[in-house]
Amino acid sequence: MAAVNRRIVLASRPHGEPTPAHFRMEEGRVPTPREGEILLRTRWLSLDPYMRGRMSAAKSYAEPVAIGAVMVGEVVAEVVASNNPDFAVGDLVAAFSGWQDYAVASGRGLRRVDPNLAPATTALGILGMPGMTAYTGLLTIGDPKPGETVVVAAASGPVGSLVGQIARLKGARAVGIAGGPEKCAYLRQDLGFDAAIDHRGEDLPGQLAAACPDGIDVYFENVGGAVFDAVLPLLNGFARVPVCGLVSGYNATELPPGPDRSPALMRAILTKRLRLQGFIVSDFADQARTFARDVGGWLREGRVRYREDLVEGLEQAPDALIGLLKGHNFGKLIVHVA
Amino acid sequence: MAAVNRRIVLASRPHGEPTPAHFRMEEGRVPTPREGEILLRTRWLSLDPYMRGRMSAAKSYAEPVAIGAVMVGEVVAEVVASNNPDFAVGDLVAAFSGWQDYAVASGRGLRRVDPNLAPATTALGILGMPGMTAYTGLLTIGDPKPGETVVVAAASGPVGSLVGQIARLKGARAVGIAGGPEKCAYLRQDLGFDAAIDHRGEDLPGQLAAACPDGIDVYFENVGGAVFDAVLPLLNGFARVPVCGLVSGYNATELPPGPDRSPALMRAILTKRLRLQGFIVSDFADQARTFARDVGGWLREGRVRYREDLVEGLEQAPDALIGLLKGHNFGKLIVHVA
Repeated sequence: MAAVNRRIVLASRPHGEPTPAHFRMEEGRVPTPREGEILLRTRWLSLDPYMRGRMSAAKSYAEPVAIGAVMVGEVVAEVVASNNPDFAVGDLVAAFSGWQDYAVASGRGLRRVDPNLAPATTALGILGMPGMTAYTGLLTIGDPKPGETVVVAAASGPVGSLVGQIARLKGARAVGIAGGPEKCAYLRQDLGFDAAIDHRGEDLPGQLAAACPDGIDVYFENVGGAVFDAVLPLLNGFARVPVCGLVSGYNATELPPGPDRSPALMRAILTKRLRLQGFIVSDFADQARTFARDVGGWLREGRVRYREDLVEGLEQAPDALIGLLKGHNFGKLIVHVA
Repeated sequence: MAAVNRRIVLASRPHGEPTPAHFRMEEGRVPTPREGEILLRTRWLSLDPYMRGRMSAAKSYAEPVAIGAVMVGEVVAEVVASNNPDFAVGDLVAAFSGWQDYAVASGRGLRRVDPNLAPATTALGILGMPGMTAYTGLLTIGDPKPGETVVVAAASGPVGSLVGQIARLKGARAVGIAGGPEKCAYLRQDLGFDAAIDHRGEDLPGQLAAACPDGIDVYFENVGGAVFDAVLPLLNGFARVPVCGLVSGYNATELPPGPDRSPALMRAILTKRLRLQGFIVSDFADQARTFARDVGGWLREGRVRYREDLVEGLEQAPDALIGLLKGHNFGKLIVHVA
């Protein structure tokens, strides 16, 4: 066991894009589990867009990370010492213990990870929070019907890629938007999307309209910004928009210039009878069992696939998160810690 | 029977506020019903905010009125000649026959009006389209729970007044927004609203916050604009916003100046897990029977009340509609035609 616990803390709050200077690596003693507790050693750390929000002081659905506190994040960890009869040394668990090598846990709120059922890292991706986000948001709010058109951006990421694949399993057309020809080829060839559009190419509105000749019935909102602008005119009557994320605006420091288009958005909601609904995965915690059954089953049957983007070393986490917010990752971004 | 049929047609499309010059009164022959048809004489004409939308060429959920065509509208009419065994002379029906004295109808799509059950004009108000709009939008999308706070603007109008009264019947607090002290006193004293706010007074945001100490759980959107701006920061997590109308913007000719606040609206939808959903009453046509049973019952039991603003003479309809869009009416606006 290493003598030190490395941890990455929030050094200061970014105004706009985060830089490495907003993070600080600290070293401390490995904590000692007390009676009933276990010691976790982080093996993999998940990096996700929501972390940008936690770096800001602005009120959101969760408390911000305090200055000087360990950055939040879910990990897959190995139990390396146990004073809790429910956990044995060597067990793997998913825990929200953050950007650090070690953590002590009571055992409550941990999710067991069985590497015999699926690779352990899937607990951070397709079988974890991102997968359940896609599953619950698409099926509960989006409710795609056979023959309908489902559009999702950030489509090669862990949420978007499963949104499109589930849409197809439900008989809908899946149209993905991603950055660059390599990601688009992956969506079409490996994941079976009906169409894929490179948002870095020319004329996103025209490309999207061509890919959606019958309009859009479900838009799973991950990104906002220019993609939403292209989607809105194509939404059909009674379209559903699960609002899951707005990553294109997470680094924004002010509102865009005018005119104020919010009245036009409200008018579209009215006249098209749209349903826009925000959610986070914890709102649907009661669906954890059906999610695990359905997506676990589809994964074993080879009906859904996933892709990981692995980064080596805890010290790389700040740069990797900064890149994630710019779309530099290709697949579920995971830091291999130990 | 009068020898002429007066009809008010759309003379030209307004850009901004309509004026009397956008309408034209014409006189023609009273039409003759053929086999199977009936002749209707208009007794009361309903005026409603949606009519402004039909005067514009912009695509909405219904076709615009053609230039030179009779203005659309629902009426309560009397059968004055009948070649249809299902209708007798003297029967009252509700029909979408528009701003004119007479019309021929096949009988299909007509709603019978029984003046022994309730005054015939209620078929255009609390027991008609406005009432069903309030009932279906509030209960199906808004879904107020006991103890929650429901806010509605245009609250002394036929939709808003019933929204607030049904909210109270469901155990929620009702907060109404209306123009002027007389309307506010009516909401509090006659309809039992828990609070009423004059949007013409000072500091609407501050007044609304004071009237909603526990935030807002349901906002029934009739008006948009400054009221929505005041509501948005007060919406609680998981609040529901049935979007029924945006009357404050119906005469707008361009978007307001910047910044573009639509990203802030999307961010609120995401972080507060809001549900915004547009609807029109015809989307809920399958609820007509439960609506008539429930609201009819409440009306007979004296548990809901209504107020009418009667205008005398078909020729007054253009001025009355122009005033409606400025909030000059007090209660359900109805033109007494004959």
